Amino acid sequence: MTVLDGKKLANKIIDGLKQKIQKLDIKPSIAVILANDNPASKIYVKNKEKKALELGCNSYIYSFDENVKEDEIISLIEKLNKDKNINAILAQLPLFKHLDEQKILNTIEPVKDVDGFTIYNTGCLAQNAKPYSIPCTPKGIIKLLKEYNIKLDGKNIVVIGRSNIVGKPLSLLLLNENATVTMAHSKTKNLKEVCLKADIIISATGQKNLIKADMIKKDAIVVDVGISRNSDNKITGDVDFENVKNKASYITPVPGGIGPMTIACLIENTYELFLKQNCLEK
Amino acid sequence: MTVLDGKKLANKIIDGLKQKIQKLDIKPSIAVILANDNPASKIYVKNKEKKALELGCNSYIYSFDENVKEDEIISLIEKLNKDKNINAILAQLPLFKHLDEQKILNTIEPVKDVDGFTIYNTGCLAQNAKPYSIPCTPKGIIKLLKEYNIKLDGKNIVVIGRSNIVGKPLSLLLLNENATVTMAHSKTKNLKEVCLKADIIISATGQKNLIKADMIKKDAIVVDVGISRNSDNKITGDVDFENVKNKASYITPVPGGIGPMTIACLIENTYELFLKQNCLEK
Repeated sequence: MTVLDGKKLANKIIDGLKQKIQKLDIKPSIAVILANDNPASKIYVKNKEKKALELGCNSYIYSFDENVKEDEIISLIEKLNKDKNINAILAQLPLFKHLDEQKILNTIEPVKDVDGFTIYNTGCLAQNAKPYSIPCTPKGIIKLLKEYNIKLDGKNIVVIGRSNIVGKPLSLLLLNENATVTMAHSKTKNLKEVCLKADIIISATGQKNLIKADMIKKDAIVVDVGISRNSDNKITGDVDFENVKNKASYITPVPGGIGPMTIACLIENTYELFLKQNCLEK
Repeated sequence: MTVLDGKKLANKIIDGLKQKIQKLDIKPSIAVILANDNPASKIYVKNKEKKALELGCNSYIYSFDENVKEDEIISLIEKLNKDKNINAILAQLPLFKHLDEQKILNTIEPVKDVDGFTIYNTGCLAQNAKPYSIPCTPKGIIKLLKEYNIKLDGKNIVVIGRSNIVGKPLSLLLLNENATVTMAHSKTKNLKEVCLKADIIISATGQKNLIKADMIKKDAIVVDVGISRNSDNKITGDVDFENVKNKASYITPVPGGIGPMTIACLIENTYELFLKQNCLEK
């Protein structure tokens, strides 16, 4: 059994980006909109900023309290769209409940949509055309699998969870890689049976211990995208790691698996948008 | 075993539309671009026109020969986009090889995109937002299944074929209906095994006799979207109908199954775009 070391690969990607960014005269810039007071969102945003700054990018956080009006955020995004010094715009999800997520996300110009969550970039991904950005978590998952020379072509892959952020774009990307993809979710009736047939299981539900050893076939590859906290406040994923690891051929840990890959891909997306806007080659 | 009678349901839909369209002062109008000299495309376009006229719509066909320049088609679409008398624009696929299909399709304003093939409408469908139009064949398949009270929620459904026109949008629609969807295709290695687990099999490959009786479980539901011609020039589908029908609980015939549903949904989409552009209720 091999642990898929997301932290190691993320560091490798980040080191590569650091060198490229150092050579630039102008630095890539990311603007982050934080319109939510949940502590986890604040930590995510802080971590993203820390990493961006560490790599020599500029990072600007726009924080709003619960009294913010939708129009204020829309106006800000319109201003950022026009601002030549801003290459990437990110609206940290979820937003306060009174805000229209769809509307706010789709105010972002596709060419600055660093998360790839706009209708335009989603449509490109679904048609296997060229989106400006590919959502960071799905992108990170595929990079990590490829780093370990795991073939996707013709493989039976089950993706559990159908969010617009992870499950759906990931399924479409895996389809573009010629995998046979099953999209499973909370309404799936026979999850165990579905999982037992899979060469690769990717779980993105946030449900603790959903994937147990008796649900995977021997030597399956297991990718855990879930992040939650167990009773002693320790970070844990969707997979019963201790038991599943003895049956899997490859498995991602939580933490240290997909989490760091997501941040590395966010910085990579920022850098790539910078290049596209400045018509430079990679 | 019940044959899913697409012709009957299509006629019912068309009769309903006819009555609604008769009551309108202005008639819905569709413009069709034919830039391909393949005889099948010409027949499809003629059939679409015939049905549109029969229902009291206006239909305009713009035919081009192989010397057409991409710019001519782009200019025409831009003119049609602005033309208030045109509600729906359709570019019959495939186009001549020298034409950029993506570019031409995406010149169509999403609000006039009657096939739902633009990046924008695809993105809406993928995000379970509201596209202006849903692609006609997937829409017709789901309508036909629902007509026979076939439940989709929690069902294991295999979709074979991953085109932007049928397989992919259909998979996304079925996911929105809470089905557990497997996307299979030419690179799928164990198609028989995949199909044997399915409650519903939907084949859209154009490969004659791909789906045989030993590939389906007893009482499975089989939907055949394929259209090809066998050695004696008879129209046939992807499914070995004569043998499969004895094992299936429901099955669509070819012809008379999904084909008529596609045309009915095209007229319905035209009518619905007309209402949206004129801000009328259904």
